[in-house]
Amino acid sequence: MKYGYGVDLGGTTVKMGLFAESGALLDKWEIDTDATNGGVNIPTDIGKAILADMNKHSFAKEDYLGAGIGVPGQLWNDGTADAVNLGWKRFPLLGRLREITGLRWVGDNDANTAAMGEYWQGGGKGYQSLVFVTLGTGVGGGIILDGKCLRGAHRAGGEIGHIPMDPTETRLCGCGNRGCLEQYASATGCARLAMDALAGSDEPSTLRSARKVDARAVWDAAKAGDALALRVADTFCDILARGLAAVTATVDPEVVVIGGGVSRAGQPLLDMTARHYRRYAFNACKDTPIVLAALGNDAGMYGCMANLL
Amino acid sequence: MKYGYGVDLGGTTVKMGLFAESGALLDKWEIDTDATNGGVNIPTDIGKAILADMNKHSFAKEDYLGAGIGVPGQLWNDGTADAVNLGWKRFPLLGRLREITGLRWVGDNDANTAAMGEYWQGGGKGYQSLVFVTLGTGVGGGIILDGKCLRGAHRAGGEIGHIPMDPTETRLCGCGNRGCLEQYASATGCARLAMDALAGSDEPSTLRSARKVDARAVWDAAKAGDALALRVADTFCDILARGLAAVTATVDPEVVVIGGGVSRAGQPLLDMTARHYRRYAFNACKDTPIVLAALGNDAGMYGCMANLL
Repeated sequence: MKYGYGVDLGGTTVKMGLFAESGALLDKWEIDTDATNGGVNIPTDIGKAILADMNKHSFAKEDYLGAGIGVPGQLWNDGTADAVNLGWKRFPLLGRLREITGLRWVGDNDANTAAMGEYWQGGGKGYQSLVFVTLGTGVGGGIILDGKCLRGAHRAGGEIGHIPMDPTETRLCGCGNRGCLEQYASATGCARLAMDALAGSDEPSTLRSARKVDARAVWDAAKAGDALALRVADTFCDILARGLAAVTATVDPEVVVIGGGVSRAGQPLLDMTARHYRRYAFNACKDTPIVLAALGNDAGMYGCMANLL
Repeated sequence: MKYGYGVDLGGTTVKMGLFAESGALLDKWEIDTDATNGGVNIPTDIGKAILADMNKHSFAKEDYLGAGIGVPGQLWNDGTADAVNLGWKRFPLLGRLREITGLRWVGDNDANTAAMGEYWQGGGKGYQSLVFVTLGTGVGGGIILDGKCLRGAHRAGGEIGHIPMDPTETRLCGCGNRGCLEQYASATGCARLAMDALAGSDEPSTLRSARKVDARAVWDAAKAGDALALRVADTFCDILARGLAAVTATVDPEVVVIGGGVSRAGQPLLDMTARHYRRYAFNACKDTPIVLAALGNDAGMYGCMANLL
């Protein structure tokens, strides 16, 4: 049996896990992300934590396949990383980690590693190809084909949050374009759809007395039968489904896996999305299953380990 | 030097070529497609033509890499083919061709083989990945990543003609959905956009006296400065560009190659499309080149040969 480390580097914490190659997560812990001084201490902090964990076990050096890392930005072929939130531009991440730990290191961006994790041990386990979508603050994505991540020529493979959905949109997306999928099918987008609906009519809704109109409040109200919230949820799923239909007509995966905070809405979100999806999808893809992610916040760690195999 | 045959099976003719593995097309010819009797004679006709050509050359059997075929439908892993226009449903195509010729046979659908041809020796030569789009009666597509065709779990990889573009569309696409890219960005779609524009106003246009308002007439009039035709051409490119932006945000290829009849409009079509594309595309993909296909009707034959390598 071989072992490896999965390291999911986020803006505030680093999630770290020790895995067996079988897929078992043997141990996991977190350390703080030190984003000061242009993130220069991050490799040292991660490396020390790995070395400390290696000291706790009696495995031989050759029992380790190495370590994988997911970064909130881009990881280039030469092992350098860009990450705006950490102040990294071509930061020599993998090289530093190798120096400190003596292990082999591989890496990718966080959306791709989460997709890989769900492919290996999560909602996409058993499928040969998948499209993974995270519905969080934004909409992220990752595409796995025959076990390999589709990174893309400019590391934009799976950036499905920025598929143009509405050419008439006047508001700006974070990316600078207008009408991206992420402007509607994210947690932020869901809240905005709700605010627009509330502002657009005097229709009674429990959302009007909600402390905060966020995606969770919308879905809770929808599940409780609030008509306005139901319409917002339906619009959310309609737009998401149309985006997914564009993706499946392009890459035709075996399964679509939905994760991220909004996916906690669960089965009602899947059902509504699937109903709209069937209407938009190309014939051959109408029955493509849409399932929930299974690994939650651990998906990235799993994917980092999968990238070592 | 090794040799091989590329066979592009169409509904009315079969285009056949003898290639050197270097990419040189040494000879090409056509035979009629006999679609009678459920297309049962097609393998015999193709096989005989191949054997006759092999007899003309002094190559040894082991000098041949085999033969590749592109079908106007689906080619399954077991070598059987579906093709509505030929009356084929799980027709044992590759097996019959092997029996008759004694050669190794490989196959794929025609859009994928054309994409592969443009990748190998055409507009995408020198790139590692491409999205190929044919603007013909419909909109076809094929995606090549690291030299491999993205076929998809249901053989729908690259079916970008059926990306949903307009949820408000009331007219039906040939596929049964409403608002597919192909309803606007094909030759048929271009003509329809022009008819709608002509019917929607009394604005003078040279198209009003055209014998036939087809895609060619639209682009000829646009190039001659006709204002209405220019607006139609611009709308055509706008919708095409928005579809391409959805595709590049998903698979992020190195290049987009545009072929098919409408691509004969040439540079003005590329320029207009690129201008709209920059507006819709995800940042990392805004500079992805959009180029013309280079092999015309021979692309499929080239791709069939490429599939042997």
